Amino acid sequence: MINETYKQRLSAKSVIRELSEYATARGQEIGYDNVFDYSLGNPSVPCVPEYTEAVIELHQTLSPMDLHGYSPSLGNTEVRGIVAHSLAERFGIPYETEHIFMTSGAAGALAHAIRLVTQPGDVVLTFAPFFPEYIPYVNDTGARLEVVPANTTDFQINMDAFCEMLGPEVQAVLINSPNNPSGVVYSEETLRALAKILYAKAEEYGHDIFLISDEPYREIVFDGATAPYPSRYYDNTLSCYSFSKSLSLPGERIGYIAVNPRATDADILAVICGQISRGIGHNCPSSTVQQAVARVIDKTSDISIYERNRNLLYEELVRLGFEVVKPNGTFYILPKALEEDSVAFCKKALKYDLILVPADNFGCPGYFRMAYCIDTEKVERSLEALRRFVQTEYPN
Amino acid sequence: MINETYKQRLSAKSVIRELSEYATARGQEIGYDNVFDYSLGNPSVPCVPEYTEAVIELHQTLSPMDLHGYSPSLGNTEVRGIVAHSLAERFGIPYETEHIFMTSGAAGALAHAIRLVTQPGDVVLTFAPFFPEYIPYVNDTGARLEVVPANTTDFQINMDAFCEMLGPEVQAVLINSPNNPSGVVYSEETLRALAKILYAKAEEYGHDIFLISDEPYREIVFDGATAPYPSRYYDNTLSCYSFSKSLSLPGERIGYIAVNPRATDADILAVICGQISRGIGHNCPSSTVQQAVARVIDKTSDISIYERNRNLLYEELVRLGFEVVKPNGTFYILPKALEEDSVAFCKKALKYDLILVPADNFGCPGYFRMAYCIDTEKVERSLEALRRFVQTEYPN
Repeated sequence: MINETYKQRLSAKSVIRELSEYATARGQEIGYDNVFDYSLGNPSVPCVPEYTEAVIELHQTLSPMDLHGYSPSLGNTEVRGIVAHSLAERFGIPYETEHIFMTSGAAGALAHAIRLVTQPGDVVLTFAPFFPEYIPYVNDTGARLEVVPANTTDFQINMDAFCEMLGPEVQAVLINSPNNPSGVVYSEETLRALAKILYAKAEEYGHDIFLISDEPYREIVFDGATAPYPSRYYDNTLSCYSFSKSLSLPGERIGYIAVNPRATDADILAVICGQISRGIGHNCPSSTVQQAVARVIDKTSDISIYERNRNLLYEELVRLGFEVVKPNGTFYILPKALEEDSVAFCKKALKYDLILVPADNFGCPGYFRMAYCIDTEKVERSLEALRRFVQTEYPN
Repeated sequence: MINETYKQRLSAKSVIRELSEYATARGQEIGYDNVFDYSLGNPSVPCVPEYTEAVIELHQTLSPMDLHGYSPSLGNTEVRGIVAHSLAERFGIPYETEHIFMTSGAAGALAHAIRLVTQPGDVVLTFAPFFPEYIPYVNDTGARLEVVPANTTDFQINMDAFCEMLGPEVQAVLINSPNNPSGVVYSEETLRALAKILYAKAEEYGHDIFLISDEPYREIVFDGATAPYPSRYYDNTLSCYSFSKSLSLPGERIGYIAVNPRATDADILAVICGQISRGIGHNCPSSTVQQAVARVIDKTSDISIYERNRNLLYEELVRLGFEVVKPNGTFYILPKALEEDSVAFCKKALKYDLILVPADNFGCPGYFRMAYCIDTEKVERSLEALRRFVQTEYPN
């Protein structure tokens, strides 16, 4: 019989999907160029030309058997070595091939990481604001996601609430920095404090607590800064990566887990991931895509457009009187709405062809998210709509 | 803490892996060309050149945003339509786009299909001989795999045993025709009898029983025949396909589920699969690979080599006195060993540099599998080793 649990999910309405459908429909009326669609986190810059060249060259030079043959279930061994070497160079952590497990994007990485360090019934903690897909990602493994309330002052971590919620049933903590939806990068201070608490509680409870670090936006950081790398601050860290954003390859489904070499059982965690794959139908990402990203491992697409967009939007939002934390990475911003009910706020914005997403599902009611991975020219045109919206609907 | 269930699997020895490692080590001693390695089911013919051309052309002509952008979670809509159209033409079943769900190979297809039609605790029946990965594929969903004993006369279905085991707790039946490891194709008669029983029991128990049909070898059929298509005989069928074997693209991880349009809730089953993806980290196969296979949808690699190999091996095995069912598809053959203990039999074969796999794990103790997806020239040379092995170890 058809599984009722999954079937019933179809009746749950997705706010983002509804907004996106509205945007598409409105686009057909007035031209999509005139709809200021800030709803979707789809990269808006092309991949580096070297990636395209790498794929073509692989097809022209390798034998089809070598290019398209089964790769080992942990991923192409040479590619794993290249990833390990690149991370070791960048972050000063002695990663080796054995610490890398290739995955189908960050979703694939998280599906393995969560199963790796939890049993059904365990609790995984994450921090608001958070990516709402974490709910099925965690809960469908049999573990249970609990959410630490947001620190809305600066969208770093609410440490008091975290300490209170970090009971012995918590086996893993899931972070996402640079963060979707706030755009904020966790500071060194935050990561040090987080690690200190995790070490203390792990000792108190007499069991490991793993840090699962979801890092698809790692390279998208502004003002010449780099994002502090969580694994440098806490040994039991599983870094979950996707090339979707840095290389603008979201459709290719390519990423990895990097196990900190000082983690418990670090030498076998990737091998255990291979066991997890069998039950979830994973069997490693495309052999061609693995080999192609390995050839452009330290490159990124031209992500400067996101910083320009951030500057334009942040300045206008501040001018218009919004309470807003300045994002220092990603392509998201999370201002406070101008009325308590952010769903109502976002609905009113539609009249001005502004597609904003209420952040209730991100664990931040009263706030809204803008995904500014769109052309700068469109961001510029949207500012006038934003001004009219605010001045008309929320005078003085 | 690290999940002990998965960790403990590492200590389970895989016979195939051990044999394959032995073959590699022996190959370093005497040259891999002199090791008659019949252990692995890796396609030995290249993909069609049109596939390579399609990938290169896609990269040269499409914008990177279109080629590498997120595809919808059910798969690229146009590609789903092309798959539906091709299946409709070939099998006379009115598939539409909505009935196709794109997956990461057959493993991804099965991971969705099993979760779609079972709840934890339900039973899934399959038939010996069977692909041993079905055990984690099914059991890791929370359902439980039970195996109907083999009909060793012709490796069709043991219908009496099937009827006996088909209790009300059985929600799905998993078949694999053409079959790994027997190489046998289920006849129309078998599929009709199977369907009749399923219809009767579904009515008796008052619930649907789904047929999950694992079909990666669908096109690899000999003597000019075609494999009867299970979905034509039973409405509640989910056809799980992979392009790994027909197009020789195992590393690209590309396949699909085709929902019979007359199945219960046929119009929403693919959509429910999209919900299942969220919890297992699937998120659809590579966007490029989807578009490339759509351009060569009705082609197959040159699979005639498998038929030549089958002929050579089958004739020699018969000549040497083996009891063996003639395979009419795939690249496997499953003869009866010349002593009761097929593990001991396969161990003795190693002295002759013949790598044979005991079929105990395939649910057929006393038999052994040969995967003859290797060069015909090597098959020819192996016959002499086979003769020496049999004549020396099992005289008269």
